Amino acid sequence: MAGPAASPISKTPVCVLGLGLIGGSLMRAGAAVGREVFGYNRSVESAQGAVADGFDATTELGDTLARAADTGALIVLAVPMPAVPAMLARISELAPRCPLTDVTSVKSAVLEAVTAAGLRARFVGGHPMTGTENSGWAAGHAGLFTMAPWVVSVDDEVDPVVFAMVMTLALDCGAVVVPAKSDEHDAAAAAISHLPHLLAEALATSVSEVPLAFALAAGSFRDATRVAGSPPDLVRAMCEGNSDQLVPAVDRAIELLSRARDSLASHGSVAELVEAGHAARTRYDSFPRSDIFGVVIGAENWREELAAAGRAGGVIRSALPILDSPR
Amino acid sequence: MAGPAASPISKTPVCVLGLGLIGGSLMRAGAAVGREVFGYNRSVESAQGAVADGFDATTELGDTLARAADTGALIVLAVPMPAVPAMLARISELAPRCPLTDVTSVKSAVLEAVTAAGLRARFVGGHPMTGTENSGWAAGHAGLFTMAPWVVSVDDEVDPVVFAMVMTLALDCGAVVVPAKSDEHDAAAAAISHLPHLLAEALATSVSEVPLAFALAAGSFRDATRVAGSPPDLVRAMCEGNSDQLVPAVDRAIELLSRARDSLASHGSVAELVEAGHAARTRYDSFPRSDIFGVVIGAENWREELAAAGRAGGVIRSALPILDSPR
Repeated sequence: MAGPAASPISKTPVCVLGLGLIGGSLMRAGAAVGREVFGYNRSVESAQGAVADGFDATTELGDTLARAADTGALIVLAVPMPAVPAMLARISELAPRCPLTDVTSVKSAVLEAVTAAGLRARFVGGHPMTGTENSGWAAGHAGLFTMAPWVVSVDDEVDPVVFAMVMTLALDCGAVVVPAKSDEHDAAAAAISHLPHLLAEALATSVSEVPLAFALAAGSFRDATRVAGSPPDLVRAMCEGNSDQLVPAVDRAIELLSRARDSLASHGSVAELVEAGHAARTRYDSFPRSDIFGVVIGAENWREELAAAGRAGGVIRSALPILDSPR
Repeated sequence: MAGPAASPISKTPVCVLGLGLIGGSLMRAGAAVGREVFGYNRSVESAQGAVADGFDATTELGDTLARAADTGALIVLAVPMPAVPAMLARISELAPRCPLTDVTSVKSAVLEAVTAAGLRARFVGGHPMTGTENSGWAAGHAGLFTMAPWVVSVDDEVDPVVFAMVMTLALDCGAVVVPAKSDEHDAAAAAISHLPHLLAEALATSVSEVPLAFALAAGSFRDATRVAGSPPDLVRAMCEGNSDQLVPAVDRAIELLSRARDSLASHGSVAELVEAGHAARTRYDSFPRSDIFGVVIGAENWREELAAAGRAGGVIRSALPILDSPR
């Protein structure tokens, strides 16, 4: 049985499941560049918020997925990780042939769930690296992704056409695309996102125990604990869904802090840690983001080439060409 | 021997020693409200920068201190901690009767150095709680202290008139004054400022070891490591000068992280830390800053009353009255 007539990649309708900060911003950003975007949200509040703002949203999941199947829409899973398996079951039932992506912060766990649901063939994982300290439709805005890195998976066997669809959507939203393998993404996300969340939680907790501390807290404390304002359920979902990578990242941070603590207590110096940290931050500030070009999606070894380029700091800023007959 | 004729507190000239971020901003903010402000900087670059911007600055320390002594100026020590003892020796020699304050982030160590230099009688420590990630004259601006907490010491035996001078200067600069004892300040500063610096350094260091991490780093990583961009010498001076308070603060952070790590590894949950951190951050966001009034500087128990009010979240937003004949 043939699927619906394929739209050009840049005109593929977009079906957003979950209209919180990320999904809601994606709906706005996609609509802003003229894409057909429709969506579902479980809670009436965010769905009504979207409708009130002039968007095409509903609380009827079955209708939404039927429409996605009819139009061959790219489905974007934008629900929290704990809700992913149930959502995949419905997709598997009602729209199994639709191209599928997600915006979840943990890629290996989603890939496993997608595989378990029998949807791997049309799935290319994604993760826009943006803030999560607010949530709900009202928190979103069309500019959320501007210049943000948006990881798109190049795991073995990802489909070139679906990859191109996800890449195009991310670029339409104003992001830059970083191609990466799911496991490498998760190790990096543990270091740059999940570990900072735990550090912020530990800092906020320990500061709250010191009598005068809140009275004196200023900029550096506010910045350092900003992400501790994120909803605990979201933080737990991110961290706990990536425990394989997060545990060693926490171990490394504890090791560095313990060494600095011992050096401070025994001979009054934190030089080693402070100098290493400053050097690292300085390298980050000058980290080059080269443009990836010259790779043809679907050509031989395209996934490996993109993974290597992403690892080296490369980003896709304008759509790469796709092979006429991808292999 | 009588000192120079006393100016009204609000007209006392201000002598700033060190025209970096804090000292340079103080010079601008004081001048902006019409105070007579003059200053010294060791490096020609910052002194010339100040002069080029129309301020009264020089690289001649002897001349500056002689002028302070002649005019009864309030001397503001705004040099890094390692330079404090040598500077105090010169003040002791050339301007020992001048009222004296500082803007250093560690209060107990400065108090000890001031006591050792024989200058304690006219000293009231201060610490504006502002960012330090940039440095030098060029980094400063008159608005740096706007609404920032500025700790002013109420240690036993601080002089009421000098306290009032420092309070007035801080208010002139747009800050709110938090009265505190030096040791309580240092415990709080370890928690809210020095510990966050070490966490940021540890985070930057560990992230730099993960291949894809810099490529994906976005807002939360940038915010969490912002202070790792501070000059290492300044960070070391802050942390190492407060090691008595910082070591236990680091121990507490390590304890919280280790417990979360073990919980994550053994049963996949970071609930305890995440919920405690979120609750603490929420309490901080709603922490009340009540106004302190009704305390007369120099009246019986005024120092204890102010210390208690500061501990409870109170701030001085407009100048408290001073007793005609302070005891």
